[in-house]
Amino acid sequence: MKSQSNKRAAPSRTTVTMRDVAAAARVSLGTVSRVANKHPSVKPLIRARVEAAIAATGWQPNVVAQSMRTASTKAIGCLLPDSRNPLFAAMVKGAEEVSRRQGYAFILANSNGDVEHEIELFTLLLQRRVDGLLFAPSDEYDARLIELIESARVPIVLVEREFPEQCDHVVSNQCNGIHQAAEYLLSLGHRRIALITGASSIRPGRERFKGFVLAHEAAGVPIDQKLLRLDSLEAAYGYEEVQSLMSMDTPPTAIILGGNMMLAGALRALTLKGVRVPQDVSIIAVGDTDLAELASPPITTVRWDLEDMGRNAARVLLGRMLESPVKSSQTRRITIPTEIVLRRSCRAPRD
Amino acid sequence: MKSQSNKRAAPSRTTVTMRDVAAAARVSLGTVSRVANKHPSVKPLIRARVEAAIAATGWQPNVVAQSMRTASTKAIGCLLPDSRNPLFAAMVKGAEEVSRRQGYAFILANSNGDVEHEIELFTLLLQRRVDGLLFAPSDEYDARLIELIESARVPIVLVEREFPEQCDHVVSNQCNGIHQAAEYLLSLGHRRIALITGASSIRPGRERFKGFVLAHEAAGVPIDQKLLRLDSLEAAYGYEEVQSLMSMDTPPTAIILGGNMMLAGALRALTLKGVRVPQDVSIIAVGDTDLAELASPPITTVRWDLEDMGRNAARVLLGRMLESPVKSSQTRRITIPTEIVLRRSCRAPRD
Repeated sequence: MKSQSNKRAAPSRTTVTMRDVAAAARVSLGTVSRVANKHPSVKPLIRARVEAAIAATGWQPNVVAQSMRTASTKAIGCLLPDSRNPLFAAMVKGAEEVSRRQGYAFILANSNGDVEHEIELFTLLLQRRVDGLLFAPSDEYDARLIELIESARVPIVLVEREFPEQCDHVVSNQCNGIHQAAEYLLSLGHRRIALITGASSIRPGRERFKGFVLAHEAAGVPIDQKLLRLDSLEAAYGYEEVQSLMSMDTPPTAIILGGNMMLAGALRALTLKGVRVPQDVSIIAVGDTDLAELASPPITTVRWDLEDMGRNAARVLLGRMLESPVKSSQTRRITIPTEIVLRRSCRAPRD
Repeated sequence: MKSQSNKRAAPSRTTVTMRDVAAAARVSLGTVSRVANKHPSVKPLIRARVEAAIAATGWQPNVVAQSMRTASTKAIGCLLPDSRNPLFAAMVKGAEEVSRRQGYAFILANSNGDVEHEIELFTLLLQRRVDGLLFAPSDEYDARLIELIESARVPIVLVEREFPEQCDHVVSNQCNGIHQAAEYLLSLGHRRIALITGASSIRPGRERFKGFVLAHEAAGVPIDQKLLRLDSLEAAYGYEEVQSLMSMDTPPTAIILGGNMMLAGALRALTLKGVRVPQDVSIIAVGDTDLAELASPPITTVRWDLEDMGRNAARVLLGRMLESPVKSSQTRRITIPTEIVLRRSCRAPRD
């Protein structure tokens, strides 16, 4: 008998919402909430009306707030130089999806490429009990970061980074991407190709330079050191170096923009100098963005599946989180392939 | 005497780094770290060499790791529908800057517009002890979100949202922005202007529609309800609705894209339909992005200072965090002004 009457009573109780109370008392949801939370700003008459409605409907306030005090969602942290970079953003989307499907919340932090701040954020995320971390350090060789990574008690998967080498890592094949890009430009007859990309302290800078060198070696074409600008992946660097390159006595006939934040700056610099693409200079960008597709002319790019990269990174991390011990000498390495998307920003150099 | 000798000894001790040990032992940084952390994978001979180098240099391992266990960085949380949206991304940049300057770390989470997930993430951020929260709820009227916000024990500042009304909020003047945009198109002679924007459950949708109506009322021009597409701010929605609008028997002569993620989709849809901008249709986008500036033709936009919006939101929050009690009936409201940037995507309609 008792269990039966409970069964009958239950539905009407659990389906009563704050909205019902608000409707019954003819007040806003905010007012109901303020009464339930004993907020002093409600007039006595309104308060009485709401309390009567709460009693009449049998509404139980603060169910959500109560669950908040007891729930224990697990979390994956993600520490990047800049989640605003469209490529990291797409990666985050894939990683968030997989994490959430497995019941994990996903928390992001941006170091803005500052190692000191990165150490603070790393520390904070681990103190706030993330259960695993996706990490793209600003410098693969910084001893403090290496110490932090090695002393961490939760698994860490590196994204677009390959050191410290005892970590799992998920990377894209930038060496092959730039190799293809340079090979294509060489096959069109270009002999003065510039490369603008990041420093060798992170993998993308190293790999892009390697691909560039390999393509030139294979074609037997020497590289003019003055055409190498290997210091940064920032948008502003693209703007400045394109201006500087196009001001040379013998400017390059083609430029590879080895950083996806550079395209907007590069296009502005070319407009400023009155340089036409592809008539005066051929352009290949790394990373396929809306801007590359919709620019005039559309820009040839090196592309890879960023969301898939994020999904893979999250899967490797989640797998490692289920293991004990979380660290082993058997590291997992996943490399996402790159491809070249031919558009209308390249042609043979003039004479 | 004692303090003097300490003074002398101190510099040489504190400046010894892991790098010095690695150099002295002729091993990699990773190897030094593994020895310091008693990792089993180091060969005995190498281990002995590193231990000798540690003793010789006086290096103190795990300084960073130790500071990790004792430091207590304070944190500001930020819960948005989508930090990948370039406009939220710029806002985050400003808020991060101010937070960091005040010694706070900044942690982000994306709800992807899903209220259930938003509740989880809100709960998680508060459980993990953020000291304040910047929040753009997916729905200003959802009773569960209102309960959560009202029961929170840390200050919350709403960004681009104005309810619940007892919260501080920092918003941009979207009503005025769209008012100006519609007024400009009406002054060019347009009488069939379409508006694509989000639903009325969040402030930007409500305010953009309001500005659109006010401009038409002021000009005495009736609005054709079929030209209103008021359901979403998503990129895909822009693509679909532009296609649908341009397939009408009497298509609009101008379109206001009331969501900054829509421009890429809209441009793709127009190319697909063979519609030229501005010859066949005039376009105004909300939110000034690289794509709007560098598209062909460059797109007229409604612009506001997003980084400043982020800086203001962080300042209001930090101010509130210093107060006691953190909630008061005196809410702070900051409205960031909007302006219209005229480019080449609009002209008078034909005939």
